[in-house]
Amino acid sequence: MAGSSFGTLFRFTTWGESHGPAIGCVVEGVPPRLALAAAEIQHWLDRRKPGQSRFTTQRREPDQVKILSGVFEGQTTGTPISLLIENQDSREKDYAAIKDSFRPGHADYTYWKKYGIRDYRGGGRASARETAPRVAAGAIARKILGPAIVIRGALIQVGPHAIDRARWDWDAIDDNPFWCPDRQMVQRWEGFLDDTRKNGSSAGAVVEVVASGVPAGLGDPTSDKLDAELAKAMMGINAVKGVEIGAGFAAAALSGEDNADEMRMRDGQVQFLSNHAGGILGGISTGQDIVLRFAVKPTSSIVTPRRSVDRHGNEIEVSTKGRHDPCVGIRAVPVGEAMMAVVLADHLLRQRAQCG
Amino acid sequence: MAGSSFGTLFRFTTWGESHGPAIGCVVEGVPPRLALAAAEIQHWLDRRKPGQSRFTTQRREPDQVKILSGVFEGQTTGTPISLLIENQDSREKDYAAIKDSFRPGHADYTYWKKYGIRDYRGGGRASARETAPRVAAGAIARKILGPAIVIRGALIQVGPHAIDRARWDWDAIDDNPFWCPDRQMVQRWEGFLDDTRKNGSSAGAVVEVVASGVPAGLGDPTSDKLDAELAKAMMGINAVKGVEIGAGFAAAALSGEDNADEMRMRDGQVQFLSNHAGGILGGISTGQDIVLRFAVKPTSSIVTPRRSVDRHGNEIEVSTKGRHDPCVGIRAVPVGEAMMAVVLADHLLRQRAQCG
Amino acid sequence: MAGSSFGTLFRFTTWGESHGPAIGCVVEGVPPRLALAAAEIQHWLDRRKPGQSRFTTQRREPDQVKILSGVFEGQTTGTPISLLIENQDSREKDYAAIKDSFRPGHADYTYWKKYGIRDYRGGGRASARETAPRVAAGAIARKILGPAIVIRGALIQVGPHAIDRARWDWDAIDDNPFWCPDRQMVQRWEGFLDDTRKNGSSAGAVVEVVASGVPAGLGDPTSDKLDAELAKAMMGINAVKGVEIGAGFAAAALSGEDNADEMRMRDGQVQFLSNHAGGILGGISTGQDIVLRFAVKPTSSIVTPRRSVDRHGNEIEVSTKGRHDPCVGIRAVPVGEAMMAVVLADHLLRQRAQCG
Amino acid sequence: MAGSSFGTLFRFTTWGESHGPAIGCVVEGVPPRLALAAAEIQHWLDRRKPGQSRFTTQRREPDQVKILSGVFEGQTTGTPISLLIENQDSREKDYAAIKDSFRPGHADYTYWKKYGIRDYRGGGRASARETAPRVAAGAIARKILGPAIVIRGALIQVGPHAIDRARWDWDAIDDNPFWCPDRQMVQRWEGFLDDTRKNGSSAGAVVEVVASGVPAGLGDPTSDKLDAELAKAMMGINAVKGVEIGAGFAAAALSGEDNADEMRMRDGQVQFLSNHAGGILGGISTGQDIVLRFAVKPTSSIVTPRRSVDRHGNEIEVSTKGRHDPCVGIRAVPVGEAMMAVVLADHLLRQRAQCG
Repeated sequence: MAGSSFGTLFRFTTWGESHGPAIGCVVEGVPPRLALAAAEIQHWLDRRKPGQSRFTTQRREPDQVKILSGVFEGQTTGTPISLLIENQDSREKDYAAIKDSFRPGHADYTYWKKYGIRDYRGGGRASARETAPRVAAGAIARKILGPAIVIRGALIQVGPHAIDRARWDWDAIDDNPFWCPDRQMVQRWEGFLDDTRKNGSSAGAVVEVVASGVPAGLGDPTSDKLDAELAKAMMGINAVKGVEIGAGFAAAALSGEDNADEMRMRDGQVQFLSNHAGGILGGISTGQDIVLRFAVKPTSSIVTPRRSVDRHGNEIEVSTKGRHDPCVGIRAVPVGEAMMAVVLADHLLRQRAQCG
Repeated sequence: MAGSSFGTLFRFTTWGESHGPAIGCVVEGVPPRLALAAAEIQHWLDRRKPGQSRFTTQRREPDQVKILSGVFEGQTTGTPISLLIENQDSREKDYAAIKDSFRPGHADYTYWKKYGIRDYRGGGRASARETAPRVAAGAIARKILGPAIVIRGALIQVGPHAIDRARWDWDAIDDNPFWCPDRQMVQRWEGFLDDTRKNGSSAGAVVEVVASGVPAGLGDPTSDKLDAELAKAMMGINAVKGVEIGAGFAAAALSGEDNADEMRMRDGQVQFLSNHAGGILGGISTGQDIVLRFAVKPTSSIVTPRRSVDRHGNEIEVSTKGRHDPCVGIRAVPVGEAMMAVVLADHLLRQRAQCG
Repeated sequence: MAGSSFGTLFRFTTWGESHGPAIGCVVEGVPPRLALAAAEIQHWLDRRKPGQSRFTTQRREPDQVKILSGVFEGQTTGTPISLLIENQDSREKDYAAIKDSFRPGHADYTYWKKYGIRDYRGGGRASARETAPRVAAGAIARKILGPAIVIRGALIQVGPHAIDRARWDWDAIDDNPFWCPDRQMVQRWEGFLDDTRKNGSSAGAVVEVVASGVPAGLGDPTSDKLDAELAKAMMGINAVKGVEIGAGFAAAALSGEDNADEMRMRDGQVQFLSNHAGGILGGISTGQDIVLRFAVKPTSSIVTPRRSVDRHGNEIEVSTKGRHDPCVGIRAVPVGEAMMAVVLADHLLRQRAQCG
Repeated sequence: MAGSSFGTLFRFTTWGESHGPAIGCVVEGVPPRLALAAAEIQHWLDRRKPGQSRFTTQRREPDQVKILSGVFEGQTTGTPISLLIENQDSREKDYAAIKDSFRPGHADYTYWKKYGIRDYRGGGRASARETAPRVAAGAIARKILGPAIVIRGALIQVGPHAIDRARWDWDAIDDNPFWCPDRQMVQRWEGFLDDTRKNGSSAGAVVEVVASGVPAGLGDPTSDKLDAELAKAMMGINAVKGVEIGAGFAAAALSGEDNADEMRMRDGQVQFLSNHAGGILGGISTGQDIVLRFAVKPTSSIVTPRRSVDRHGNEIEVSTKGRHDPCVGIRAVPVGEAMMAVVLADHLLRQRAQCG
């Protein structure tokens, strides 16, 4: 089934398994004559790359991207861009032991039930390693969006510890290993995650992604509303269990008056006085910041033994000792940014097609 | 842009405006030789129909569906099924006053920015009336799923008042005007909503939809994961601002041990001991109940005046006196069920195609 | 399966059976603010309408189109346009006799084998009546293309009688019941078709469609090349058995020198000195006229008895006495024009999306 | 634009330029647990490989395919299969001279007009080299179709010299460098093509592809009829200018009686007495052989100088001295077979989805 392609006009198709020879994607629909170098893609891949702190997996992957097509003399040609990332730090033997086991919380059982076969090495296709090509596609999407549209992500909760939004500082993001916008929270998260790891446990997280400078008018109701497409994009990231836009779940408890984003004119421009809508009304961007959050469940690979079964119907205990992220939510930040970028790029092209 | 079609194999395309002559949809990909009568579709439409209690809009629409094609001698033929619902209780004049106004929280402004034109009568295309064809498509989807797959929805929060899950009783659903599974909550919601209406305000809500009997194996990673498709389906419903699966946002605060759904063998079958995953792992159904929730913002049409602008750039106040749902979340319950059904039907066919 | 939708950005979905209550289509992706009235669509439908001469079916269908959505105050709104045409001259009883028979050359047998059920009344879904909504969609496509792109069709062969291309006169097209551009051929075709009908037989035909004023650059290689899309569009018209572009099959016998369309500069513009390519190179329009031809087989409904079988496995003879076109190729001319228009409109939008 | 993906359920996306580092494709929707080795794909690629006789290009490309994903322990896993073929015999300098020239009959001009940039090396993306990944995808499609469906192609005309169909012998196909089924024609084609090459010219051809063993019921009317999809598939092959099914263009001159494929019962099975329909009625396979032909224009790269222009608007003469096929129609035979296979595989899955 053609389920590895994302997008309509700007579309990317990912392929590859965690411990196969390589992973990659083909990106279609890119406008021609955009300057594009592998280094620009690499910049974003490096943010997702494992092994950058003690809080992410120790697998050593340079995640070096090669452009195999669609770029000529430094410019996109409008033809498909094939991107390839070789897997270098595979350790197949790490996985021989779980060959027949279904690790709780992982996709082992469902892949087995769906396909009757699975590449058990490191989660195979279900590995979060599949998000590397997504980040690469997102880098190209950013080129389409141009510098006026700025997409930034932040980690706003780790385990039960949420940031104080009053202390939000975008400049803090790059100064800590968590993309945390609240400098005072960093130390607590470090302590919490060190404890988590020592206890053989793992932690969940909440990510927030904001896109600024998005023009009003993007989104294609009633099926391909911008918020619906973003929800699909985010929920499709490994381990994500919830997505909300603007006020999100909190909107349910608001009154109609409080939830309404009133409008005034300022300098001849429509100005919204609040942003409960998260920049989207009726499935179309308003011109305000697009603001969304998604919840990432705790990493399923944990040392603490869990009860499970194997594919022969035996009851077993599973304890995962491989190299894993104690909190996959951290590396989900650049992935969320990338998915925001690909959705916006697709809808920018769609809007240009229909409405000129 | 082709943004009104939903689904890949089982696909429906809706059309129509709130106060145009009719609304409807075309449903493609329906397997042949399913018994299908208009009355079966009507059954589900009647649940969404307005005017059934004082808590929904007083617009009088019988929402009578006609089957124009694709059914012959009581059976589906495998060809497109065209469904038509005439609008009967239009009151165009109700809307002349808001012709040029942008109602806060509505799609007026964004449709204007996107298309440069809008059918201002009752929200036009952005009206929740567009969900009637979705419910009709959902009725056909249920025929594909068959009786073994049961899809039920419930309202679990109105404004700030959430039910007590310990009192959950599916039998209560049809005994109150809210699809509320907690009998003790009904009276409080009645009082709350009566007050809300009297105050010229409106209320948000949270809906939960559960699908039982879904076989393991549905979903098409990595782009068309089942949870990603469901997130798109639910977020695309009018006024929805958040979607979560299983433990959802609460998963972020759980430890890896607590979040893991352990497995044992029972009577030769794999048995999960909990369902934090909400029935989906790696984007594929596990065979457990699929459980999701979505948040509906308070109705944007309120009597209390809100500041806004019109399309000529004048600052105005908007007070909406038409016939409106004080809490659109109530009628979102059958819509959520329908969207669950269409996603599952599509993926049932997709699974049969690829994996036999 | 979602097989009744055509196009990517400009997309239409047809529905309806020959003797059901109505037929129609939903047209998505139409740019907003195009002036559109039902009368403009009717203009093109009337050209396809049956019963306009003794050489087409005597079924009396006014083919009156209604616009149910997507147009407000005379302008497209950018939302789906639902078009409805009621069937008025159904005669179900004409078909009771062939209920279980498989008429040779018709889709009776294949629909039965595919779906296990068929609406046998007048071919049901397989009827050429399904081309009426295509013509309606084509009328909207023409609005997108604008007046600078002119699409014209002609009948250039009926049975074995081909026109003399040296006598081609576009002005002759509307002066005869065949859309024949060769005035001297008209009388021969009349005599030939009168004989054909008297003999209880039917005749095939060849249609040529030409689009002028198409800008260079349309088409989306390598899968959605413009010629590939046109081939699909034309081969999908009922009874079509062959499609060729430019020199077509004759190109096989040409030398490389003779086939090459040489180029010179004229008034600062690139000028092609011939058009063997039919206006398409590498799957992309050159700016020259797009020229294609398609072959229509003789109508399968004939009075002369043919050997066949019924669905119970009995050997039978079939003789069709209903109201039928002796040469369906005639009414295929406006259908071919419409399909040219819809392909070009789709690719005009696609080109605008990707290349601005 | 996402124009390099072909198919709905069985879908492949090609990428790569003639003289880039590599070409390849991603194949999605492959059922799991099919045995698949690179050698099986290689078998079909070798048939298309250049340099196997003096009648094809002398470029030396081993066209060695690597499987990068989607296959585990010799079996398909149901996840995307990424195939890579490195370009080895690139000669960029051969193309410096034509950098700014538009070669008549090539896509140089149209790519320039569409994208405003082109990879001029050997036609870039428009090179027939792009058909190698199609053949690879076709090899996988054959695995889905299984051994009961046999797809064979033949060259039936070279320049003006058509075979005598009475001498058709499938066994002859592999005994000559042309896939010619008429042994007596081989020598004449050899002489003709030797002369053609010596004269600095090139020749066109007609290819016939036949699929046997295809079950009745494939095809998805009314948009995705099997013949429409095949027409798209074949017309999209480089240099193809015409496609016909069954009697094709000749059907236009037949009478209704002669064109009808009569049916009788034989051994309890429906038996067609002729196959003018080419195995497809109403866009659905009948169970008979699917028979189609397509015309390939003469290779546009010829030594004989042709008049053209360059991108600066200068009038020039173009003479192409690189390594080229004197008759690209020869190598189009395995490409046509592959495209038949991919269309059938897609529709086999689609049929299974909808009709079980």
